[in-house]
Amino acid sequence: MAVNKDNYCVIMGGGIGSRFWPFSRKTLPKQFLDFFGTGRSLLQQTFDRFKRIVPVENILVVTNDMYADLTRKQLPELAPEQILLEPTRRNTAPCIAWAAYHIRALNPQANIVVAPSDHLILKEDDFLSAIQKGLEFVSQNDKLLTLGIKPNRPETGYGYIQIAESIGDNFYKVKTFTEKPELELAKVFVDSGEFYWNSGLFMWNVNTIIRAGELLLPELAAKLEPGVGVYGTPEEKQFIDENFPACPNVSIDFGVMEKADNVYVSLGDFGWSDLGTWSSLYDLSPKDEAGNVALKCQSLLYNCKDNILVLPENKLVVVDGLEGYLIAEADDVLLICKKDEEHAIRKYVNDTQIKMGDEYI
Amino acid sequence: MAVNKDNYCVIMGGGIGSRFWPFSRKTLPKQFLDFFGTGRSLLQQTFDRFKRIVPVENILVVTNDMYADLTRKQLPELAPEQILLEPTRRNTAPCIAWAAYHIRALNPQANIVVAPSDHLILKEDDFLSAIQKGLEFVSQNDKLLTLGIKPNRPETGYGYIQIAESIGDNFYKVKTFTEKPELELAKVFVDSGEFYWNSGLFMWNVNTIIRAGELLLPELAAKLEPGVGVYGTPEEKQFIDENFPACPNVSIDFGVMEKADNVYVSLGDFGWSDLGTWSSLYDLSPKDEAGNVALKCQSLLYNCKDNILVLPENKLVVVDGLEGYLIAEADDVLLICKKDEEHAIRKYVNDTQIKMGDEYI
Repeated sequence: MAVNKDNYCVIMGGGIGSRFWPFSRKTLPKQFLDFFGTGRSLLQQTFDRFKRIVPVENILVVTNDMYADLTRKQLPELAPEQILLEPTRRNTAPCIAWAAYHIRALNPQANIVVAPSDHLILKEDDFLSAIQKGLEFVSQNDKLLTLGIKPNRPETGYGYIQIAESIGDNFYKVKTFTEKPELELAKVFVDSGEFYWNSGLFMWNVNTIIRAGELLLPELAAKLEPGVGVYGTPEEKQFIDENFPACPNVSIDFGVMEKADNVYVSLGDFGWSDLGTWSSLYDLSPKDEAGNVALKCQSLLYNCKDNILVLPENKLVVVDGLEGYLIAEADDVLLICKKDEEHAIRKYVNDTQIKMGDEYI
Repeated sequence: MAVNKDNYCVIMGGGIGSRFWPFSRKTLPKQFLDFFGTGRSLLQQTFDRFKRIVPVENILVVTNDMYADLTRKQLPELAPEQILLEPTRRNTAPCIAWAAYHIRALNPQANIVVAPSDHLILKEDDFLSAIQKGLEFVSQNDKLLTLGIKPNRPETGYGYIQIAESIGDNFYKVKTFTEKPELELAKVFVDSGEFYWNSGLFMWNVNTIIRAGELLLPELAAKLEPGVGVYGTPEEKQFIDENFPACPNVSIDFGVMEKADNVYVSLGDFGWSDLGTWSSLYDLSPKDEAGNVALKCQSLLYNCKDNILVLPENKLVVVDGLEGYLIAEADDVLLICKKDEEHAIRKYVNDTQIKMGDEYI
């Protein structure tokens, strides 16, 4: 595929992925894990994907200081200055704003695709075509573009985007963004044909996003704009360490996308999943005839149905008489719970931290 | 307690304990494991117990060649010649007969207590008093003595001994030995007051047992009697390696105790368990208020009842929504099954061996 030197990619890789505990740990969150045993972590897969359409030297990873070594180790192709290290966890808006100021200092014509580091894309060619078209679109239009996914089920774990009129060639103006809906509402959304999953993947020209941030998030811009002049220089990290912690904790969705009046969406079906939960992993994985999923481990199942087992390679798991359970083990933690009650995982993590301290988190 | 230099103890430690798989492995069977985290394995506990009444140099362990290193490591107090190594697995009669010939070569007046290596004894003083009384009894009587345990429940996992007339001082003639009964019969046994659990623990004078073996198991004696002259010498191991494999595979219960006419039983209640199954381990272990047992591991349980968890130390196990399950993990195997269906464990082990080979056995 064609590679445009004005195209940049920002991979957001600072999350802690607590919904995948204990497989995902604070010291090794899910984007660094190889869930399917393909040999490449989700972060590496994301990098592999975008380097087909973005020059490798234009790919940035924004992550937390504590994941610096992990990121360098998993992506040795990146020069040190291509890894932006946040001193504290904020939300997506500060991360994206910093990346935009940084990139503008390198290339004031840059078009940027911002992508999470933990998504699965099965139809990669279709996906990359859409990204290329989107980058072309934002290079010529002062618009904020997001990627909407055609829903195949009334998923309650995703936010939705309602589309308004088409402006041609599969681009639509966005009418509303919605929070994660209840099941009944999700069914209405899907049946309407007007609602698409919010992928959390964005495209824009660097000047468009900086302008939107200055307009809609002045408090954030006030912290980062003074760094103009040091972005892209050896002093950048020190400036960020001093100023980033004071940035407001706000998401790009809430802070910009839901408020701006120039937001558009490009639609598609890319075999996409945000791999947000064990259930989504279950849905995506090959199953035995009784609906059981066993990832990585060896398994011997008796009277078992609709379970998902994720344990270390070479581990043998023998289970007799379970239905609909998650059995996940990593290092020193084994979790067994109903797989449709996985929302409780945050509670398990919290209780574990309270009772046992940080050792198992 | 008094230690008599004519008293010997034979600890049988060659079993493979497959009913405790995966905790008990072929390369590390249950007698070498520390189930309760006391710091001493079942074998070590057995040794610790008997050395209070038997001179350490008179304690023998009979085990399999493959457990030689494990035994030496766990019981460094034993001289090399105190560990009798079977070249092949036979049953209890060949093991006991060899030990008897060996001991007679060292001390023709020896009185012997033969004990399994995997029993739990909670009332140790009562137990040792009974053993001392029993050894005194067999030193003066040409009788085979076994230990009967007063049953506290209609256990179907044990064999029973029916007693006949008392000969005073808590010794009774044995009327019959029975196989493991069905539940209804077990209830009748317990209610009758005439039936006691067969502990598999024996006492006799060395000449009594050798004579009984020669009379009742001539095929076995024919293999081992020719070694008289080499027992207790450096040539003993070679003789055993050549002749032991040809010994008949027969238990001491079936081959001698059920057939001899001079069999007596000493009765007691010693807080005894043969720790034969996960259920017996569950019954013996401290429980939380919902009846859950967690051995060794850390646990965080939600909506859980009557489960037994046995996992490595420092492992955190989080379980939500299980009742009556066994969750056992050791090394590279995790087993989850209903704890009252543990008879299926042999099936799991067999299937594992067929499908995966020896790696997980």
